[in-house]
Amino acid sequence: MYIENVKSPKDIKSLGIEQLNTLSKEIRKALIVRLSKCGGHVGPNLGMVEATIAMHYVFNSPIDKIVFDVSHQCYTHKMLTGRAEAYLDLTHYGDVSGYTNPEESEHDFFNIGHTSTSVSLACGLAKARDLKGETGNIIAVIGDGSLSGGEAFEGLSNAGTLNSNMIIVVNDNEMSIAENHGGLYENLAQLRQTNGTTECNFFKSLSLDYRFLADGNNISELIKIFHEVKDCSKPTVVHICTQKGKGLSYAEENREKYHFSGPFDIATGKGKHDNSEVENYNTITGKIVIETAANNPRFVAITSGTPGVFGLNSSQRQALGSQFIDVGIAEEHAVAVASGLASAGCRPLWAVYSSFIQRTYDQMSQDLCINNNPAVICVFAASVYGMNDVTHLGIFDIPLLGNIPNLVYLAPTCKEEYIAMLNWAVDQQKHPVAIRVPAHVTASDVLFTDNDYSNLNRYQKVETGERIAIIALGSFYSLGRKTAVEIERRTGIHPTLINPRYISGLDSNMLNEIKSSHDIIVTLEDGILDGGFGEKIARFYGNSNIRTLCYGIRKEFIDRYNVNELLKENRLTPEQITEDIEQLL
Amino acid sequence: MYIENVKSPKDIKSLGIEQLNTLSKEIRKALIVRLSKCGGHVGPNLGMVEATIAMHYVFNSPIDKIVFDVSHQCYTHKMLTGRAEAYLDLTHYGDVSGYTNPEESEHDFFNIGHTSTSVSLACGLAKARDLKGETGNIIAVIGDGSLSGGEAFEGLSNAGTLNSNMIIVVNDNEMSIAENHGGLYENLAQLRQTNGTTECNFFKSLSLDYRFLADGNNISELIKIFHEVKDCSKPTVVHICTQKGKGLSYAEENREKYHFSGPFDIATGKGKHDNSEVENYNTITGKIVIETAANNPRFVAITSGTPGVFGLNSSQRQALGSQFIDVGIAEEHAVAVASGLASAGCRPLWAVYSSFIQRTYDQMSQDLCINNNPAVICVFAASVYGMNDVTHLGIFDIPLLGNIPNLVYLAPTCKEEYIAMLNWAVDQQKHPVAIRVPAHVTASDVLFTDNDYSNLNRYQKVETGERIAIIALGSFYSLGRKTAVEIERRTGIHPTLINPRYISGLDSNMLNEIKSSHDIIVTLEDGILDGGFGEKIARFYGNSNIRTLCYGIRKEFIDRYNVNELLKENRLTPEQITEDIEQLL
Repeated sequence: MYIENVKSPKDIKSLGIEQLNTLSKEIRKALIVRLSKCGGHVGPNLGMVEATIAMHYVFNSPIDKIVFDVSHQCYTHKMLTGRAEAYLDLTHYGDVSGYTNPEESEHDFFNIGHTSTSVSLACGLAKARDLKGETGNIIAVIGDGSLSGGEAFEGLSNAGTLNSNMIIVVNDNEMSIAENHGGLYENLAQLRQTNGTTECNFFKSLSLDYRFLADGNNISELIKIFHEVKDCSKPTVVHICTQKGKGLSYAEENREKYHFSGPFDIATGKGKHDNSEVENYNTITGKIVIETAANNPRFVAITSGTPGVFGLNSSQRQALGSQFIDVGIAEEHAVAVASGLASAGCRPLWAVYSSFIQRTYDQMSQDLCINNNPAVICVFAASVYGMNDVTHLGIFDIPLLGNIPNLVYLAPTCKEEYIAMLNWAVDQQKHPVAIRVPAHVTASDVLFTDNDYSNLNRYQKVETGERIAIIALGSFYSLGRKTAVEIERRTGIHPTLINPRYISGLDSNMLNEIKSSHDIIVTLEDGILDGGFGEKIARFYGNSNIRTLCYGIRKEFIDRYNVNELLKENRLTPEQITEDIEQLL
Repeated sequence: MYIENVKSPKDIKSLGIEQLNTLSKEIRKALIVRLSKCGGHVGPNLGMVEATIAMHYVFNSPIDKIVFDVSHQCYTHKMLTGRAEAYLDLTHYGDVSGYTNPEESEHDFFNIGHTSTSVSLACGLAKARDLKGETGNIIAVIGDGSLSGGEAFEGLSNAGTLNSNMIIVVNDNEMSIAENHGGLYENLAQLRQTNGTTECNFFKSLSLDYRFLADGNNISELIKIFHEVKDCSKPTVVHICTQKGKGLSYAEENREKYHFSGPFDIATGKGKHDNSEVENYNTITGKIVIETAANNPRFVAITSGTPGVFGLNSSQRQALGSQFIDVGIAEEHAVAVASGLASAGCRPLWAVYSSFIQRTYDQMSQDLCINNNPAVICVFAASVYGMNDVTHLGIFDIPLLGNIPNLVYLAPTCKEEYIAMLNWAVDQQKHPVAIRVPAHVTASDVLFTDNDYSNLNRYQKVETGERIAIIALGSFYSLGRKTAVEIERRTGIHPTLINPRYISGLDSNMLNEIKSSHDIIVTLEDGILDGGFGEKIARFYGNSNIRTLCYGIRKEFIDRYNVNELLKENRLTPEQITEDIEQLL
């Protein structure tokens, strides 16, 4: 075993090609075992084993600096930079995050989890090197899928003006998370077909130097090409073609499924928690998409590179024909296209993860909401129960979207209410509507009564009580109900329970009406408190003698948290909330 | 005069080339007169007279749909689509906005004011046309400057996959607001030099068809090329070269100065309100940039296509050498570069307008603040006193930036405090810091005492009073002072006056301390209330018997408003606030 002896990249520099090839086999084997047990980004990591070895063989990290785009392909890099144990020893699996992380190693320069940022970040490092009069190579590693995002283009075009060293390794595996979309990808195909020689070359058109390597999984060829570009004096693209999921037959075949996977059986590839019988909001949404598309030829489902968000497989997507658009990882474009479609009488539905809608504030505001075009947006994983990596948190969308004029932002509490809101949103043509998809497919609550949400900002009083009112938003409705029970148990007071439904506006009538019979208003929201829903309620009651207690998550970047611990830390349990209320009674 | 008889584009279709040329002269003359009196986008409009005439001659608006990028070049379009009076008759100048506006005309499809959105919006219209089984041309008109923005790239690459009609007119005047920046522009130069024939072609690399016209101010050639692409079955770029500022010698010469201008004297071009003696925050900032750059070789000033934000002229910028970066209109890249620079120990300062920082939420969060890199950002025109077009409002940045973890968002109240905060921000290396540049260069207030802001979230008590405390943020500090005077005059109560300085955090100590001697807390902020500063104060006091009154702007897209009226509508005068307080006393 070589890998156990690699404590830093220096330790591979004395190895010969044969030994490096053996090392790559060891690494791939370790990756497969770890991925099968913990899950993770299977395809991207397996494809980049050889290229990462070759980079660390040729370049001198951390003086030479490698910036990985999305950094979901950085496992081999971590193994070569002192963190191999976390991939070899089960008891140390938890030592590292799934992304680059400067707190872990001097070889990591940024926390990165969103796409298309590496070239721009690397431009900053290159510029800093030049200002400081230092030397060294700055290397950005970016996948073909990430090239569709606007920030990557901005980075590439600006890199083209840099009169000094920078190397951009384009890892072309002919895939994004799913298949690629965009005219750019025809150019990449042409480049592959012509061994990089076609005259019309996207990268050259941005004033970048360019080199091509057909077999990006061949260590000796990789070493050769990296040696050629090392210390180049002008930004240079090294376009390498790799096999996504290499070494795992089912991952090579089904590249979308194994882009990211939970734990799986190595022999068969079958996911250990796979259960296609279990209903989730992706499949619920996909079903509505198929039904609506069949009934309304003007309906279009849009994804920005994450077609799985609709829970539809590739053939279901194809069956939707022109009523399904994947724009690639291009969220800004998705919003503008949706706005254009809606303005012309079509009914676009864009489904997107909370973490990624962050990439579109200006488009939501300018392209969509100023124009008040009735596009529909489903915001998934907008919850503490969503993804828990610091780069993929779903707790910031309420301040982001809830404060944009004209946007109706809805928070359904359960499956039935989600479906009703979604159907209404697609049907109406008056407002841009976003829907915060609940965290859990809960059984229908008796409370659910409405199919029409066009009379905006009408909250629903589910329980009429006295003295205490709980306004429990979306996914935290069930927390509200449990809290009501706990309050009654401990104090004998039967609280009012309100499902506000609308994140983006206040029901002044109801809020005023309950003033006379209530002293304490509690708000619960599944996101950060700052700029959120509860603060609007606090402002509303500011000039009265009503007390307001706002519950939600503290404004903070949290990483790989345990949900229950996080909730406790934020006093988000029925018991803690009841304690706080008792203090005020 | 032909122009007076043009009520719709139909009215120019029977004209011959000679007559169209005469029409263009009439239009240009009218534009110059109007621009000289009202100000506006001089260069972009004068350059696009002929191309706009030719488009309306060849295409059949509104069945054929033209989407103007930024839409700051749409004046001729407005004149040809029933709104000529607003350009010919002084008393009707106020009838139209400076941008396309669907409320004005069926020939306008979107409110647009930010760059790089036209191709994506047009893709939506094209897709809608196809879904509805309609015909007609969809035309996006985009300037070369706008091509540097990521959304434009996302749009172009996605347009490349559209198997139906779309025409993208690239209006290449070799300028952005100032000069262009980015490797892309070398390709545009090559295309111009080779009459569009060079093989390496950015547009073709995105699978777009391509045509070139050297003289984009020649109506008959424009008509010819538009005829050729009309009803094309594949997205096609028509690259035309125009003269920015055409017909006005000083605007042709000084294209940056006359990109946008206030009223000017036609004969000389001298601005009617030009007064280079008057100090403003642009020149104040530019002065600090020059000084800091001289003292610290690691300091870099960054602009994203609006170098005027630093109040530096072209030669001053050049003198800064590698310590000044213009990344073109690429705000996302600007943030990432700043983060990279800061992470490597350099001191980047990005200056940007409030309206445009909206384009970077995800980069602010992911590229910068998760990594806690100490870049510095000056946010200009973040005020009701900033730009007042609906697409350029400066009232949304507090909810946008104020709720991002790790970011220290500061609100200086006066020139001295701004300078102190800026110097501190550039000096420290612990936090990403944004500074909300005040609206007015006010005389120094006696209150100003601090040079070190590293002890975060410490508010400053300027006046110690009783019962009523006014927390007056940034530009509204002077409103707070006036309100304090008015309250004392009317009620005899001497209020406490607080300069909170930190937008992004609460001074819990001070807020708790004043509880015992105060009943009413008033917050004032120069931006929308929703998600803003005051709501945090309201939440803080929610569980106490303190009354909070939050003042700011209602969440709403407002257009071409009168500031004083807006303030009154939002009860933002000392008298109104005092009235409200009296109700509570």
